[in-house]
Amino acid sequence: MVDAKQKNSPPHVVIIGGGFGGLYTAQALGRAPVEVTLIDKRNFHLFQPLLYQVATGSLSPGDIASPLRGVLSRNKNTKVLMEEAVDIDPQEQNVILKGKELSYDFLIVATGVSYHYFGNEQWREKAPGLKTVEDALEVRRRILMAFEAAEKEPDPEKRKGWLTFAIAGGGPTGVELAGAIAELAHNTLKEDFRTIDPTSTRILLLEGMDRILPPYPPELSAKAEESLRKLGVTVQTNSLVTNVADDAVTVRRGDREEVIPTRTLLWAAGVKASEMGQVLENRTDAKRDRAGRVIVEADLSLPNAPNIFVIGDLAHYAHQDGKPLPGVAPVAMQEGEYVAKLIKHRLKGQDCPPFQYVDFGSLAVIGRNAAVVDLGFVKFSGFLAWLFWVFVHIYFLIEFDNKLIVMIQWAWNYFTRKRGACLVTGQDEKMRVEIEEGGTYTIPETTESPIEV
Amino acid sequence: MVDAKQKNSPPHVVIIGGGFGGLYTAQALGRAPVEVTLIDKRNFHLFQPLLYQVATGSLSPGDIASPLRGVLSRNKNTKVLMEEAVDIDPQEQNVILKGKELSYDFLIVATGVSYHYFGNEQWREKAPGLKTVEDALEVRRRILMAFEAAEKEPDPEKRKGWLTFAIAGGGPTGVELAGAIAELAHNTLKEDFRTIDPTSTRILLLEGMDRILPPYPPELSAKAEESLRKLGVTVQTNSLVTNVADDAVTVRRGDREEVIPTRTLLWAAGVKASEMGQVLENRTDAKRDRAGRVIVEADLSLPNAPNIFVIGDLAHYAHQDGKPLPGVAPVAMQEGEYVAKLIKHRLKGQDCPPFQYVDFGSLAVIGRNAAVVDLGFVKFSGFLAWLFWVFVHIYFLIEFDNKLIVMIQWAWNYFTRKRGACLVTGQDEKMRVEIEEGGTYTIPETTESPIEV
Repeated sequence: MVDAKQKNSPPHVVIIGGGFGGLYTAQALGRAPVEVTLIDKRNFHLFQPLLYQVATGSLSPGDIASPLRGVLSRNKNTKVLMEEAVDIDPQEQNVILKGKELSYDFLIVATGVSYHYFGNEQWREKAPGLKTVEDALEVRRRILMAFEAAEKEPDPEKRKGWLTFAIAGGGPTGVELAGAIAELAHNTLKEDFRTIDPTSTRILLLEGMDRILPPYPPELSAKAEESLRKLGVTVQTNSLVTNVADDAVTVRRGDREEVIPTRTLLWAAGVKASEMGQVLENRTDAKRDRAGRVIVEADLSLPNAPNIFVIGDLAHYAHQDGKPLPGVAPVAMQEGEYVAKLIKHRLKGQDCPPFQYVDFGSLAVIGRNAAVVDLGFVKFSGFLAWLFWVFVHIYFLIEFDNKLIVMIQWAWNYFTRKRGACLVTGQDEKMRVEIEEGGTYTIPETTESPIEV
Repeated sequence: MVDAKQKNSPPHVVIIGGGFGGLYTAQALGRAPVEVTLIDKRNFHLFQPLLYQVATGSLSPGDIASPLRGVLSRNKNTKVLMEEAVDIDPQEQNVILKGKELSYDFLIVATGVSYHYFGNEQWREKAPGLKTVEDALEVRRRILMAFEAAEKEPDPEKRKGWLTFAIAGGGPTGVELAGAIAELAHNTLKEDFRTIDPTSTRILLLEGMDRILPPYPPELSAKAEESLRKLGVTVQTNSLVTNVADDAVTVRRGDREEVIPTRTLLWAAGVKASEMGQVLENRTDAKRDRAGRVIVEADLSLPNAPNIFVIGDLAHYAHQDGKPLPGVAPVAMQEGEYVAKLIKHRLKGQDCPPFQYVDFGSLAVIGRNAAVVDLGFVKFSGFLAWLFWVFVHIYFLIEFDNKLIVMIQWAWNYFTRKRGACLVTGQDEKMRVEIEEGGTYTIPETTESPIEV
């Protein structure tokens, strides 16, 4: 087989990961005098900030995902490879895929993070996180099936367990998820059941720190908590999950432990680096932080490998104040664009100043009409913040048809409080929710008597 | 537990199955003086006529599915139960669910059909059909992964196997699927790969009879075949599948057998009754036809059980000419509405004339701009037929937001030839396509040289 690095062939940039970091790097290199290979296990880019809306039945996976080949089809210098990178060889400048190798001149690693169960990996099965399309559909299945199970459950105590939802982690994902479940229970499903009253649903948001949204200014945390309360969410701060069972979660607050009966615990409580972090440590002696993120230089390269860059959630880039940049989409996008610029400069023999993150602010949505926004120079919340959130998310959705369809879905959901994507899908054997007791069904009294006689 | 049939409580209508038949019955009984329970294994109604568009990446499952509880939430006399009916007891008038029983005064069985592999059940794994959302996502996964595998495959012979798609069955589903795959290969994916040329894809439509769309008039079959040819589909009539392997399908034409190398065989070749057909035979001595469908009376009831009705694909209702009504949505819808009317009449002590099917015609779409329509008094094909098809399908989509979003998706797909829903999702272990040989990857020559230098 012919090796790629023939004489006169352009330098080869290999990007591992098609998230915000990898995709923005590839897009910025579209007209550069290089060959680009983007490697991803999946064939699509996922707009993760809206994943919680798939999990709560507002959007379909197709609305927030764009096939990578389609997005990059006009970049004729770019090849997409649906593969998994398992190792790298910095001496030979090769990426090792399953049974194959791929040589590079520049390597960008943007493989992100996954959820972290603080040494309790056995909780993963019981408390799914929210990183992939499959996660979101599993969370959706669990939420909707809990209502179905409650509808069938004759024992009021057990029914309460089905109608209690706990979310571990009060960061943006946890807050958005809690708000969305509250709207689902109190609005969307309100009329849908005949035995249970979905508005009696209890939603618990458990946060280990002393306030939710810890990276935000305290006044926005307070506003967010107030908005969640109005939606019917119980916020418990200083609360650490210490045990997870099928029908309960144990929470420690100070030195008091409480067992909360719930059949649905969702995990949004902490992340750890993907496996490429370990690979980079092994192969280049790169240092890593406690979460396993790779500590990068001022130009996002590795200390011992100036042509390997780590960007996005996997990178630990020390900010001015010494804290690492947060694991959010804008950081990954800016890092990707920076690395693309740096590569173009290097090829011309030019230097490039260190990476500078421009912080446009933070925002989190709490539900219909409510969000919190911190733009640094101004903080606001409520309906205006919600409109701002809608605008920003629509603006950054990759493809035009996604933008249009998500906008219509939102408008429809907003005015009707209906959700079209409340489907339970998946494997057949997964779909059974067994109620322990048998017996004859009761036809409940209907709330209205039939009109026609 | 209290039994449902208390004094003065309204009669209880139990409907098994939330497809077109079951859902239209429930909707027509919404204001009748009865209590209705709709039982379905799934929590949503699926618009099956558009399932092939999910399978080929034009639409998302959420676009063509509506949660049953949402659709029926305004019918306060109606309860939805996410359950599986396993048996019935006509003497006691009970439906047996898993470990529970439900008494009925009227029972409507509308559980439909599944694909039939003519005694070769082992083919099911290799050649998926197209009846459920999971089927459609599996077919989508196989189609897209075949292109991915071809892109990675160095051996030209093996690559050809990945780029050959065979569809068994030339009925409406087979025809629509073949046309959609052709458009995917020749338009949507045209620019997306760097090693393979998707337009070299071979698409085979295999039909056992002497023409495709056998229930349609011969001139429309000919038109459909011509349209498919133009799209690049090879139509093989008088062709029976006699063996299915991982990398080939064996087809008999007359007394000649041909082995066609292909990695993707899709099944649209014949249906058999769902298990409730057997249950009805066992419990009521109902007669069944060769496909297992239950032969019903002129009022759609069973000969020995006048308060049990079978409708939709599961019913064999002898038409004027002696042939059973076809298994299509309009038949199921009209049967559902008829049974609802009959129940209302019976409750008033009135008679109801036998069921009469009003045939509004048949139609099948062959691809962008092409369809065939047979309205009885007029037959037409081409662009006008396609527009008619679009109109009819949009009209019958259950929910308003589905209609709007499907229309926008179609408009977008029509003008851009892009498809937003080309996602490969599913279990992790399913996502690997192994190429047998290892070796170093070749970076292919790009088709255009980079512009910026």
